[in-house]
Amino acid sequence: MRTRAAVAVQAGKPLEIMEVNLAGPKAGEVLVEIKATGICHTDEFTLSGADPEGLFPAILGHEGAGVVVDVGPGVTSLKKGDHVIPLYTPECRTCPSCLSRKTNLCTSIRATQGQGLMPDGTSRFSTLDGDPILHYMGCSTFSNYTVLPEIALAKVREDAPFDKICYIGCGVTTGIGAVINTAKVEIGATAAVFGLGGIGLNVIQGLRLAGADKIIGVDLNPAKKEMAEKFGMTHFVNPKDCENVVQEIVNITKTPFDQIGGADYSFDCTGNVKVMRDALECTHRGWGQSIIIGVAPAGAVIETRPFQLVTGRVWKGTAFGGARGRTDVPKIVDWYMEGKIEIDSMITHQLKLDEINKGFDLMHAGESIRSVVVY
Amino acid sequence: MRTRAAVAVQAGKPLEIMEVNLAGPKAGEVLVEIKATGICHTDEFTLSGADPEGLFPAILGHEGAGVVVDVGPGVTSLKKGDHVIPLYTPECRTCPSCLSRKTNLCTSIRATQGQGLMPDGTSRFSTLDGDPILHYMGCSTFSNYTVLPEIALAKVREDAPFDKICYIGCGVTTGIGAVINTAKVEIGATAAVFGLGGIGLNVIQGLRLAGADKIIGVDLNPAKKEMAEKFGMTHFVNPKDCENVVQEIVNITKTPFDQIGGADYSFDCTGNVKVMRDALECTHRGWGQSIIIGVAPAGAVIETRPFQLVTGRVWKGTAFGGARGRTDVPKIVDWYMEGKIEIDSMITHQLKLDEINKGFDLMHAGESIRSVVVY
Ligand SMILES: [Zn+2]
Ligand SMILES: [Zn+2]
Ligand SMILES: [Zn+2]
Ligand SMILES: [Zn+2]
Repeated sequence: MRTRAAVAVQAGKPLEIMEVNLAGPKAGEVLVEIKATGICHTDEFTLSGADPEGLFPAILGHEGAGVVVDVGPGVTSLKKGDHVIPLYTPECRTCPSCLSRKTNLCTSIRATQGQGLMPDGTSRFSTLDGDPILHYMGCSTFSNYTVLPEIALAKVREDAPFDKICYIGCGVTTGIGAVINTAKVEIGATAAVFGLGGIGLNVIQGLRLAGADKIIGVDLNPAKKEMAEKFGMTHFVNPKDCENVVQEIVNITKTPFDQIGGADYSFDCTGNVKVMRDALECTHRGWGQSIIIGVAPAGAVIETRPFQLVTGRVWKGTAFGGARGRTDVPKIVDWYMEGKIEIDSMITHQLKLDEINKGFDLMHAGESIRSVVVY
Repeated sequence: MRTRAAVAVQAGKPLEIMEVNLAGPKAGEVLVEIKATGICHTDEFTLSGADPEGLFPAILGHEGAGVVVDVGPGVTSLKKGDHVIPLYTPECRTCPSCLSRKTNLCTSIRATQGQGLMPDGTSRFSTLDGDPILHYMGCSTFSNYTVLPEIALAKVREDAPFDKICYIGCGVTTGIGAVINTAKVEIGATAAVFGLGGIGLNVIQGLRLAGADKIIGVDLNPAKKEMAEKFGMTHFVNPKDCENVVQEIVNITKTPFDQIGGADYSFDCTGNVKVMRDALECTHRGWGQSIIIGVAPAGAVIETRPFQLVTGRVWKGTAFGGARGRTDVPKIVDWYMEGKIEIDSMITHQLKLDEINKGFDLMHAGESIRSVVVY
């Protein structure tokens, strides 16, 4: 079949909207009509050429929602008409990682996914001239129709609006999941969130959901304060307005009983390795945990004195918020539909596929929290 | 009263054995006759001058065992004749850290202890001329008699031999505790231990106690292999004999089912920040935990790519093996007396106080695992 798609022809160039060929689903695969897709920083990271593992030409996009159109042989858990969210972290439930019950990082199709291919080592996409176009993160939601492995699709309720729940395919789950699955924040905890973009706001609402007491947001842009407060932030720190961010957070978290201070948990949503160090060091001596969410530039390293860890701090990271996609994503959709979490106000811009490059411009200008393309 | 002690007069100089004055215990303090004391790398670190927080003149030593001789006003949990092990990490049970139930790093007397003083801000030791001599890590077990806060003494059974259980005051508890309290290793886990000195051997026997399957020891010295095997090591890796230690450990931990590989847990017992990075990176994608035990040189930093953490590895540290001294140390003494753990073969040298500098020489020459001074 043919479908319209925004193709990343090469690094550093705008996406090109064009008709492409899409082969039907092979065994274990599913054809999905994408109804809406968010534009994420990770798409931008790859498109810019900064991602050393980026491959071209490819159809980017990994934050979508849509409807099953057709299934390949052997597909048992999905059927035509099911509403689904694509999963760049699949959940096969049979690999050593899935069976470990200690990680969400399913490894069953990792190698081919990293090469921009379906699990059989080929691509379903090609130009009208027949030249192959690569998949991206196993999703390629910047195409109106796409093919995915069955294990990379979460089945969700049918009354949920595509143009909102697509965000659960990446940012929402990453932020909320980091709090719930990775940090396992408990009621009454204190937390610091570095970077108040889309991920940061979702971390903040995750913290509110988890019952955290002090939720400290850190950002260089004072304009972020108002929105973050709506999501549950209780204290705002602008590094420009204080001598030492770490000390400021330590002071905010001190109590009459505990004069040591430090956040119980911290989250880096910036991708800046210097910020990651501050995030670790502002946590509480003895038990503070810092979670890295942001993606750092290629080759960048984090560093600290080992004393920080020997005195009880823990350094962790999270991918897709530690969520097992097929199991957890449908629950997060339910939470949205029940009003437990908020998404609508974070979708600041809605675009047509033809306007998708404008979404990247809005991101660069810092004007959007999330732009969503509706097909 | 007067007591004999080995005094660290200044950095880089041998200890001087002399008579010193010891004032009696003040409120909340206890006078202890030290019967035996180990010589630990931390004493050496301070004596050498490498420790930026080292203070002189001081009476070093923090790995002892002895008998209560007298108690100051208000002491309720100890009486004359009780057998005790001094605790450089006290357990007050009332400070925010103790009450958190999340750390063993009691903070109630941290400030004065760091200054070489008792909690009231003064020293009990002085020269015969009346010049003050500082305490060390709140213990000063290189003195035949010493004064400690009640909260810094673990009461232990009276049939346990002082010249063996003194080692529980630091090395044994640090190594075994890192496995049990900090890593919480489970039955069937795989683990890598970097550095097969005294701490490494105790980590290894902790792993055996915890039921670990593969226990991989890493050391540049092949002579360490035999002893480590007696304590439970199942595989030995000499970095000199393989291209890449990390890859070697990954290969050893692969199974027919799990072709990703990586240790479930790793422990750095070297204090070398480059080794600490290897220790992190040899752990399993998705859930590997690396525990820093070794003390790094002043100013040294650890580093890695954040990708290592984002893909599920956890970086931690431990001090005194995460043990709450008054609660856990008596249990470890019981384990020794019941034969659950082994200490005797690690005490390679027994010395008189007059010979204490020989203990440091043996350590430098790599000839001892532990030298113990018996008063
Ligand atoms: Zn994303
Ligand atoms: Zn899997
Ligand atoms: Zn020690
Ligand atoms: Zn305490």
